[in-house]
Amino acid sequence: MSELTGDRPVIRLRPKSKPQAIRHGFPWVFADEAVLDRRTKALPPGGMAVLEDPERVPLGLVTVNPASKIIARVMDADPAAVIDGAWLRARLERALALRARIYDAPFYRLVHAEADGLPGLVIDRFGDAAVIQPNAAWADGMVDEIAEALVAVTGVTTVVVNGQGRSRGLEGLTERLEVIRGTAPDAPVPVQMNGAVYLADLLGGQKTGLFFDQRPNHAFLQRLVGEGKVLDVFSHVGGFGLAALAGGASHALCVDGSAPALELARGGALAMGAADRLETMQSDAFKALESLAAEDRRFDVVVCDPPAFAPSKPALEAGLRAYERVARLAAPLVAPDGYLALCSCSHAADLTSFRNASARGIGRGGRRGVHIHTGQAGPDHPTLPQLAETGYLKTLFFRLD
Amino acid sequence: MSELTGDRPVIRLRPKSKPQAIRHGFPWVFADEAVLDRRTKALPPGGMAVLEDPERVPLGLVTVNPASKIIARVMDADPAAVIDGAWLRARLERALALRARIYDAPFYRLVHAEADGLPGLVIDRFGDAAVIQPNAAWADGMVDEIAEALVAVTGVTTVVVNGQGRSRGLEGLTERLEVIRGTAPDAPVPVQMNGAVYLADLLGGQKTGLFFDQRPNHAFLQRLVGEGKVLDVFSHVGGFGLAALAGGASHALCVDGSAPALELARGGALAMGAADRLETMQSDAFKALESLAAEDRRFDVVVCDPPAFAPSKPALEAGLRAYERVARLAAPLVAPDGYLALCSCSHAADLTSFRNASARGIGRGGRRGVHIHTGQAGPDHPTLPQLAETGYLKTLFFRLD
Repeated sequence: MSELTGDRPVIRLRPKSKPQAIRHGFPWVFADEAVLDRRTKALPPGGMAVLEDPERVPLGLVTVNPASKIIARVMDADPAAVIDGAWLRARLERALALRARIYDAPFYRLVHAEADGLPGLVIDRFGDAAVIQPNAAWADGMVDEIAEALVAVTGVTTVVVNGQGRSRGLEGLTERLEVIRGTAPDAPVPVQMNGAVYLADLLGGQKTGLFFDQRPNHAFLQRLVGEGKVLDVFSHVGGFGLAALAGGASHALCVDGSAPALELARGGALAMGAADRLETMQSDAFKALESLAAEDRRFDVVVCDPPAFAPSKPALEAGLRAYERVARLAAPLVAPDGYLALCSCSHAADLTSFRNASARGIGRGGRRGVHIHTGQAGPDHPTLPQLAETGYLKTLFFRLD
Repeated sequence: MSELTGDRPVIRLRPKSKPQAIRHGFPWVFADEAVLDRRTKALPPGGMAVLEDPERVPLGLVTVNPASKIIARVMDADPAAVIDGAWLRARLERALALRARIYDAPFYRLVHAEADGLPGLVIDRFGDAAVIQPNAAWADGMVDEIAEALVAVTGVTTVVVNGQGRSRGLEGLTERLEVIRGTAPDAPVPVQMNGAVYLADLLGGQKTGLFFDQRPNHAFLQRLVGEGKVLDVFSHVGGFGLAALAGGASHALCVDGSAPALELARGGALAMGAADRLETMQSDAFKALESLAAEDRRFDVVVCDPPAFAPSKPALEAGLRAYERVARLAAPLVAPDGYLALCSCSHAADLTSFRNASARGIGRGGRRGVHIHTGQAGPDHPTLPQLAETGYLKTLFFRLD
């Protein structure tokens, strides 16, 4: 152990690994890249250790989880850092400063994991309530300290822990869903975005109850829609559909497989005074696209925002075929000179592959189109340039002939 | 010659070329991919011919220019189309419909070449005036008919032809600059964008006097700037700097090598009532970045929007080094927790290469940053999905530590 690191457990990069990448901000160490000393091996999942390069020069403080392929995540470039309430508050304050600069109201993703210096931790804010997704072992173990710091920095009164989803499994974490500060909201929380009202079910919904990431793309849709008719497929709680209504659309049809999600969409439309302009259809999306075509329905704007069809590399080819199929089935539903928005939240499908699959689908659907805009997650979803994977969301807007 | 094509000149794809790509919307035929019949060889540059596949099946009407590497460009999928006033008006009306849907005021790129079905033709609109860039031989030859159709469709009263720049050279066209409808404006035209006022010199400026493409990125900057101080390097007529002032910035410093461009920037600030908040510096950009660092100046937001450092593949490596250098010199000028926007309008540098060069430069400038937004040209610059090259503009926003 080098003198600099004092008496803390040590994890050391193997020769020929990438200390330079870590120095330049790459935040992860994979299991085959490092050797753990005896004390690091004895750490509980999420415990802290000093990362050293092969020459034993300290590179920073990391959280170690032997159950994960990502065996260590950089917490701080300072190997002497102490991960406590003060440290957490400093990170949260910095994250809050970015969001407060950009948004008028306290509804946003407050913490977006690595890019906010809080590996694996996601926090969404809904006014006086916040939902924590502790998707790394350290955060799962320190969730109480995180809630404490969150209350101190933001003044939220309700804190929900929503530990679900694929990334927790990769970390060896089990599911959890609990209210750890304040009381559970007795009704869905109304969230204003782009003039629309969304109802977020903080305890019963997917992920954290509402997806903030499509906000700039909802806004772009509003510029296209005029008084037109909109079809929002895979609508969840009505993201694009309600935005379209707020933007002046005469009619929106939201299609989703989930009855509770559509119920929330109707509740949002009611709160907006737009209930008479919203139609909902509970259906498998592919079946809905086919039946709407059979009925000769046409829409000025069609949006398809499916779940991740290509969440991982092995699923890439099948995923791209599914995206192409969505485009092929959706394109014929677009009125002449109308618009088609196609979204992918797949990490494994890069922009070029997704755009090509979409263009192929549009062509096979018998239409031609030009691309007018590529949307992405809003700035409350920052990414590390060293970790391009974190830029997962792509929303392509096409104008069809 | 096949019967279908009547008595028009014919250009035929060689075997093993790509008729499917053309059928799916790829708009270009390269010189080594096709054979010209006797009458096509006798056409003047820009003359029209029927494109056939190797089996003599017509694929569409093309404009032929033997002086260009792109020997033919698809004008119409209908081989019997006639390129006349009615045809031009129909294309312009379709282009106008998109812009009228998106923008409140008639200031935009009205025609963006291939993606608007008008190969090589660019038209920018400044209220009652329009500037035509006829960057393909057919458009150069038909510029009078284009102006006629433009006046009919949009009601503009002044039409300028600005034939300059690299793409004309590739088409074998010489430079031209003339007013072909109405009278030359006797002063720069004021253009409102994002609440700022820009002065566009339709006869003396670069390209068409003002760049519309950065408009959405100017708007994004306005959300970051607050009352902060802004540095706009390679400012031209003040694109980002004046937008920042309109967004509430307390001070903007515009740096450019061109005295007339800075004069226009000052004129814009005067028209906005913000002259006291604008500082200009006529200088080489790299020298300015170094001297500002030597003076310990710091800015809440720094924007660098250089000319295309990598306009073509052979220039790519040197271009990426230049982008890295810009990032390295600019990063130290950003105040703690401030923002850095780096732009590339290079066709040859793709998003990943440019982002990596920028991130390297930021690191070598002694800073760390997270990426919060990737901007692109606005929707008045549509692109063909088959021709990704047309998506040239990339503006990366980073938040530095």
